[in-house]
Amino acid sequence: MLDTQAKNELLDIVGIDKYLDRPEELACYSYDAFLEEALPDAVIFPETSDQVSRILKIASRYKIPVTGRGAGTSVCGAPVPVKHGIVMCFSQMDKIIEINTPDRYIIVQPGVVNADIQKALEPFGFFYPPDPASMSVSTIGGNIAQNAGGPRCLKYGVTVDYVLGMEVVLASGDIVRFGSKNIKDVTGYRLSSLFCGSEGTLGIITEAILKVAPKPETVKTLMVTFDDLDNTAKAVTDIIGSGIIPVAMELMDNLTLNAIEDAASLGLDREAQGSLLIEIDGVKEACEKEMMHIIEKVKKNGAIHIQEAMTDIERENLWTARRSAYGVFAKLAPDIFSEDVTVPVSKVPLMIRKIVEITDKYHLKVGVLAHAGDGNMHPMIPADRSNKEEWKKVEAAFSEIFQAAVDLGGTLSGEHGIGLAKAAYLPLVMNKDSIDLMKKIKQVIDPDLILNPGKFV
Amino acid sequence: MLDTQAKNELLDIVGIDKYLDRPEELACYSYDAFLEEALPDAVIFPETSDQVSRILKIASRYKIPVTGRGAGTSVCGAPVPVKHGIVMCFSQMDKIIEINTPDRYIIVQPGVVNADIQKALEPFGFFYPPDPASMSVSTIGGNIAQNAGGPRCLKYGVTVDYVLGMEVVLASGDIVRFGSKNIKDVTGYRLSSLFCGSEGTLGIITEAILKVAPKPETVKTLMVTFDDLDNTAKAVTDIIGSGIIPVAMELMDNLTLNAIEDAASLGLDREAQGSLLIEIDGVKEACEKEMMHIIEKVKKNGAIHIQEAMTDIERENLWTARRSAYGVFAKLAPDIFSEDVTVPVSKVPLMIRKIVEITDKYHLKVGVLAHAGDGNMHPMIPADRSNKEEWKKVEAAFSEIFQAAVDLGGTLSGEHGIGLAKAAYLPLVMNKDSIDLMKKIKQVIDPDLILNPGKFV
Repeated sequence: MLDTQAKNELLDIVGIDKYLDRPEELACYSYDAFLEEALPDAVIFPETSDQVSRILKIASRYKIPVTGRGAGTSVCGAPVPVKHGIVMCFSQMDKIIEINTPDRYIIVQPGVVNADIQKALEPFGFFYPPDPASMSVSTIGGNIAQNAGGPRCLKYGVTVDYVLGMEVVLASGDIVRFGSKNIKDVTGYRLSSLFCGSEGTLGIITEAILKVAPKPETVKTLMVTFDDLDNTAKAVTDIIGSGIIPVAMELMDNLTLNAIEDAASLGLDREAQGSLLIEIDGVKEACEKEMMHIIEKVKKNGAIHIQEAMTDIERENLWTARRSAYGVFAKLAPDIFSEDVTVPVSKVPLMIRKIVEITDKYHLKVGVLAHAGDGNMHPMIPADRSNKEEWKKVEAAFSEIFQAAVDLGGTLSGEHGIGLAKAAYLPLVMNKDSIDLMKKIKQVIDPDLILNPGKFV
Repeated sequence: MLDTQAKNELLDIVGIDKYLDRPEELACYSYDAFLEEALPDAVIFPETSDQVSRILKIASRYKIPVTGRGAGTSVCGAPVPVKHGIVMCFSQMDKIIEINTPDRYIIVQPGVVNADIQKALEPFGFFYPPDPASMSVSTIGGNIAQNAGGPRCLKYGVTVDYVLGMEVVLASGDIVRFGSKNIKDVTGYRLSSLFCGSEGTLGIITEAILKVAPKPETVKTLMVTFDDLDNTAKAVTDIIGSGIIPVAMELMDNLTLNAIEDAASLGLDREAQGSLLIEIDGVKEACEKEMMHIIEKVKKNGAIHIQEAMTDIERENLWTARRSAYGVFAKLAPDIFSEDVTVPVSKVPLMIRKIVEITDKYHLKVGVLAHAGDGNMHPMIPADRSNKEEWKKVEAAFSEIFQAAVDLGGTLSGEHGIGLAKAAYLPLVMNKDSIDLMKKIKQVIDPDLILNPGKFV
């Protein structure tokens, strides 16, 4: 419960319509797509940067935790208010402020849904490259806070590569701006890159200037199946190693393919041990040539079936299959534990073998899904969390999977973030002095530690 | 002069061969390509990260300023030791530690010259995209510290887009590591992006993991001249606005073309009022198609002469002309004042007119050179610094040029950095709270303010 005086001051700012604190309302803001839950004391819907600033001044004065929230699609617990306090929700700050494709930027408020940015850019022949699987619902504020990735980040890069500038409200209520509308800008520290991926622990993003890109003339999409998972992975390293960087290269194993087929009857090959969804884009003639090279490489690695999407609908079907993987997999058991360890791409075959070996050892099912071209793996283990013994095995398996990734030169998270999910594992990849440096930066920017407390820093 | 005890402790670490303090030696490390000079008390050449750590511990204990230095090609005064102390020079840490093109990374020490990275990658069919004009001599440590750009950054992005991870020694002597060998990595704060472009004020970079890219199949280079500078600039905005992103699009005005021609007799058109050096790359068929579109656009804007480089030598000649611009221009007067204000690309025509208008007002010559495709302008004013009246006019003109860029939505620096040159102008683009935030971060990471003191933060 918030202090009554604090509550009244907050109500003065946003009004009763933009303030929730009944338990049944609070419950809706207590979780994300990770498994932890924690009730906030209040949920606030600011409408302007100035309101955000005034709210944070009050929160600082009363030492009330503040956790930013977009659509709550995070899979690492980032927006879960583990220390309670205020959840600040951005559904009322969802305007596109400026679209300027001649200068290749767009200015948005944090609550704009990623897919709505794509829709707004479509008539101009432009797009915003980062495409997290959640893009139809997730907001740009959350995408930036988590430095979201996605399948086509293989060719196009991740969110931080598209953040030109931002407005941020600090815990003190100070409104600061970094970066600009300029594609090149080395004026002062690159603070927008520091705030991008800081998971709401350093400030609240209230506006962002994003770089956008012209839509390619042609897109080609290919579904390839293999009768061996190892060969599937080797085809990936072969293609990347030869210097071709497709837009996306998505790997799915037999269990994942069958789970999707059970749910959606898309005509996927149930016998295939591995599949690759490969997409390339660019000038038509270049796509044709690259596709030829790619087909050569997958054939060399024993591809048994190669299907090119001939229409937009066929292409959409292939992507629907891929995007639905997490959802259909989640239905195989009461709970699902999914991670996103990342390894250098040449280590993908070895990492897949490790994942299978480790889960076999614990007698657990595993679905392997990966943005394979950049080594970003999504092993998914369906399990029952209420079965304590089983859950212990799941946690032990993931602990070994993290260690295996790190041993191969990999890292804990390629795109989901650390949040609650992986905070305990940070020392696997950062030494004490490096973690201390993060903490120092956190403390000097947010001295009362009110911003998204209880997370990785 | 350093304290004798401090000097002895430093000599214990590096030995007498790697320590300079005679005035004639110190003078060589007192300046960069900017105009200010300041003598250090000593120059040290560390050979390992451990030595760097031990040196910084001593510097912290005795409160001795430490300024990192690569090849000293900075044009903003970044490595000038204005508060004296130690210049730490990285010519002894110039090893390429690992080349791994299948996984698209290279690991280097800070003293490796940019061009040597290119040479090392060549046999693998890969390259490192950022290409500052200084690349034949400038080191990667300096490139990272300044977040260097270059012509082909239009298509490929700047240094920060290629820094996957780094090892940094903090003022305390702590050795920290961020990032990894992985193309995607959201494990903890994105500290490598914060240190990139921090101009040696936050830590000393002792190792870097850089992303590299496959060399394109084909490169096409075009020199186009116009009889009107405004049309030259409009051709740029037309090409970019149509969704074509060339590798580079370099603009030169009549004065610059003639200065180059005077120096090198390359057969450039002395009558042309503006020229564009345009380069595209990729799959051969795609280049041909894009080139057709580009030629259409430049013709529409009144191109008078279009010359495509038909051989590597012709291509090299065109680039030699462009790269020599700064050097030959510097010979027109005892001194040269050059900046790199940047504006959104649609504002390039207007910004060029502003530059000409402002310099005309002060009766100054100006050469306009620009990475025009990303709005990064390099106005160059040849002048005599010893002529105080003239120099005052030069400074007044640049002050107006900065303001004009900012008024057009632009920024102070696209790739050179702030250093000494533009520190006073920061408030034009950052509010007080934003500058304070930079200072706070600086203070918490370098509490005794020993790292490159006297600069923009």
